[in-house]
Amino acid sequence: MSEAKANIGVVGMAVMGSNLARNLASRDGNTVAIYNRSVEKAHAVAQAHPEANFIVGESVQDFADKLAKPRTAIIMVKAGGPTDAVINQLVEVFEPGDIIVDGGNALFTDTIRREKAVSETGIHFVGAGISGGEEGALNGPSIMPGGPAESYETLGPILSSIAAVAEGEPCVTHVGTDGAGHFVKMIHNGIEYADMQLIAEAYDLLRNVAGLSADEIADVFTEWNTGELESYLIEITAEVLRQKDAETGKPLVDVILDAAGSKGTGVWTVQTALGLGVPVSGIAEAVFARAVSSKPAQRAAAADLPGPAQAVAIEDRAAFIEDVRQALYASKIVAYSQGFDAIIEGAKEYDWDIKKGDIAKIWRAGCIIRAQFLNRITEAYAQDNDLVVLLAAPYFTDAVTKAEQAWRRVVVKAVESGIPSPAFSSSLAYYDGLRAERLPAALVQGQRDFFGAHTYRRIDKEGTFHTLWSGDRSEVSAQDTH
Amino acid sequence: MSEAKANIGVVGMAVMGSNLARNLASRDGNTVAIYNRSVEKAHAVAQAHPEANFIVGESVQDFADKLAKPRTAIIMVKAGGPTDAVINQLVEVFEPGDIIVDGGNALFTDTIRREKAVSETGIHFVGAGISGGEEGALNGPSIMPGGPAESYETLGPILSSIAAVAEGEPCVTHVGTDGAGHFVKMIHNGIEYADMQLIAEAYDLLRNVAGLSADEIADVFTEWNTGELESYLIEITAEVLRQKDAETGKPLVDVILDAAGSKGTGVWTVQTALGLGVPVSGIAEAVFARAVSSKPAQRAAAADLPGPAQAVAIEDRAAFIEDVRQALYASKIVAYSQGFDAIIEGAKEYDWDIKKGDIAKIWRAGCIIRAQFLNRITEAYAQDNDLVVLLAAPYFTDAVTKAEQAWRRVVVKAVESGIPSPAFSSSLAYYDGLRAERLPAALVQGQRDFFGAHTYRRIDKEGTFHTLWSGDRSEVSAQDTH
Repeated sequence: MSEAKANIGVVGMAVMGSNLARNLASRDGNTVAIYNRSVEKAHAVAQAHPEANFIVGESVQDFADKLAKPRTAIIMVKAGGPTDAVINQLVEVFEPGDIIVDGGNALFTDTIRREKAVSETGIHFVGAGISGGEEGALNGPSIMPGGPAESYETLGPILSSIAAVAEGEPCVTHVGTDGAGHFVKMIHNGIEYADMQLIAEAYDLLRNVAGLSADEIADVFTEWNTGELESYLIEITAEVLRQKDAETGKPLVDVILDAAGSKGTGVWTVQTALGLGVPVSGIAEAVFARAVSSKPAQRAAAADLPGPAQAVAIEDRAAFIEDVRQALYASKIVAYSQGFDAIIEGAKEYDWDIKKGDIAKIWRAGCIIRAQFLNRITEAYAQDNDLVVLLAAPYFTDAVTKAEQAWRRVVVKAVESGIPSPAFSSSLAYYDGLRAERLPAALVQGQRDFFGAHTYRRIDKEGTFHTLWSGDRSEVSAQDTH
Repeated sequence: MSEAKANIGVVGMAVMGSNLARNLASRDGNTVAIYNRSVEKAHAVAQAHPEANFIVGESVQDFADKLAKPRTAIIMVKAGGPTDAVINQLVEVFEPGDIIVDGGNALFTDTIRREKAVSETGIHFVGAGISGGEEGALNGPSIMPGGPAESYETLGPILSSIAAVAEGEPCVTHVGTDGAGHFVKMIHNGIEYADMQLIAEAYDLLRNVAGLSADEIADVFTEWNTGELESYLIEITAEVLRQKDAETGKPLVDVILDAAGSKGTGVWTVQTALGLGVPVSGIAEAVFARAVSSKPAQRAAAADLPGPAQAVAIEDRAAFIEDVRQALYASKIVAYSQGFDAIIEGAKEYDWDIKKGDIAKIWRAGCIIRAQFLNRITEAYAQDNDLVVLLAAPYFTDAVTKAEQAWRRVVVKAVESGIPSPAFSSSLAYYDGLRAERLPAALVQGQRDFFGAHTYRRIDKEGTFHTLWSGDRSEVSAQDTH
């Protein structure tokens, strides 16, 4: 017990956990204790990375003993049951004032539940979203911690030391209390789904309407990555498209089975947004597109359904490529606007004080959706923190104004060519719905009143009304009905 | 205690409950007991409808005493807490073998939970979806009971006696065990959302592209109601569009505020389908469209976003109207196809033996989505019960084949005119995705493998693979990676 104590511990030595532990150990002033259910794994990690000087906990108790007080430990194990199991073990050996951090991909409602339970023991619990995959964990992720502000005083400097850095600022901020961090991480992943689907649709159109090869499209994406679309996902898309399959010599993208998998955070995002009444159509269409792709029996059964014999001809290839770029950018703005709507409504529902601009800032590096573009979101909320919809901020209004006609041309080409563009077309339909002076929702209200006496409001006076459809069809004030 | 006993009871004397009780009382052989938390309400209903000869339960115990054994009671109270409260009361006074029916709009997972809890007492619990609104409850609803098959022996004849009748058959069937009935009712409501949104989009295009008046569109819908679109919703749409506002003389639809409300079953449908991996894009876009319409602050902020100065000109108005009809029909087929996919996946997940054809049958009358068209669905599943996707059944393939080009023309006109058509365009994108020989999901898998080592499958051999993107970019079998 006289040996040096660790100032931070990591539980769970799978790739994400060991990489995060190595990242922590590489920073000045940190001594890192590690623990794993099978202790051999922890020893193996320590031996493989002697430069880290890991202190191995032989048991949960030993791990706790090797941490300086107040103890701080980051859990990096599977979401769900395994996370609950580790939390329960740590609660047994930790003391009031210690901090347990869940760095896994927990559903934010689980985090709220856990925070409530753990805080009753006097131990602090922090759910922290960590984005950036294995490489991010090792070299600098984007970190979204929730939990009590008090814990952030201890935790903030440690997390800041290992986070990615964007324009000199570490990509970490105290998002809000209890589940706020995991909520924002979930929305991040949902936006990531939309971003990827939009890129996939752009690729599909360039390939099958413009007739470009995978290599040529890689060049297009590389070019796009020098402008307003600059982002990690655009960059790696070019890398993927340039990759050749060693066996066949074909572009790798042509030998990969076109059935997209998912880990569930996209589904959570849409389910949550639905519950909050937020239309996240771009994210939803991305989730649905992956689902469609993963149904081989249905696709085989539907393969003979008719469509255009060939893609429509385009007159000016360069102009079409630029149109696709504009459509991608405008659709991306819609996806982010919808994602931030979900953050705003989530913050209202769960009473979180989320600084929208700071969220955009910490996504500028480390995470999968990192992009230059996020500075524009930060600026928009800096100018007007009560902005009711991101699309209406001057920068974004300008961007979609420039893109709008190209966006329509691209959706038209996709529809006429029979190329599925659910996210492009849905984003445009959302845009047209949001800006519409008058929506046919009035007819829907009329129908609902007809069959269910659900009542309606009027454009010209206050109150709710009902037409006596089965009676004399006069209108009554809704208080007069049952 | 010597008086005549009731063979059926109804708890909850709001409009749906009292109408259902009156419906029951009007059928030969039924004696109906009624109970309400405030007994005065039950007495008032009995007095207002002396022809029903209701037996009023003065207390829950008295209500139970007035029911012949095995007792059968239908609960018609608000979903959630109020339903749980009534169930708990009835469980106290009922006996093993008695039947409690929840006829409210419960979430099917609540029904599963309740069935499990109640069945432990030996009392049977049946969650039954009842569709048709107040009028349906009184004159004949479509009824979707779940619960144990055993209870259906008692319950079936009673429910058959009050259900709507379609082509000589009562619109009720034992859907499946525990929550199956409420699940199918939820999907019914989800499809209803899509149906209404599609009608609203058709209206919007006829109004703003074809330039028809509300009255002219009413005539169009009346005409459509004589063909393959024949349905209750098409019929009432014509009624709503013909209605004039007494105060202004304008069409009522022009004075109704264009902000559509919802009661939550559409949200449940999409949330559930997402969890089951079923793309229900038509329903989702309908739910989102209502959400967009109900955000006045966002709509005001976005009102100046640019769009086409005016709708595109159409050369042949009659041809355009027919195109819109075809687009509506094709999109409607997609919505039903997706809805039945959700039923199929729900049945797998929860181990229900749902006869898809029977579900289509009991929706032919009584409920909001009642339509001739449902016979085609019954036929499709009669021909092939293992049909993997409704769209691929011969009748529907023929229908979309006829409609496909018109559908594209309509979406193009909407996009070029700046008229939001999220459900039309999303349905078409789903259609093009399902029939696509090759989807850009392959690129998504490449991206996922790049940033998260999520692996991919290949088109030319079994197994899962990973490219060493940060290494020498060779491909390894996924077992070789961590």
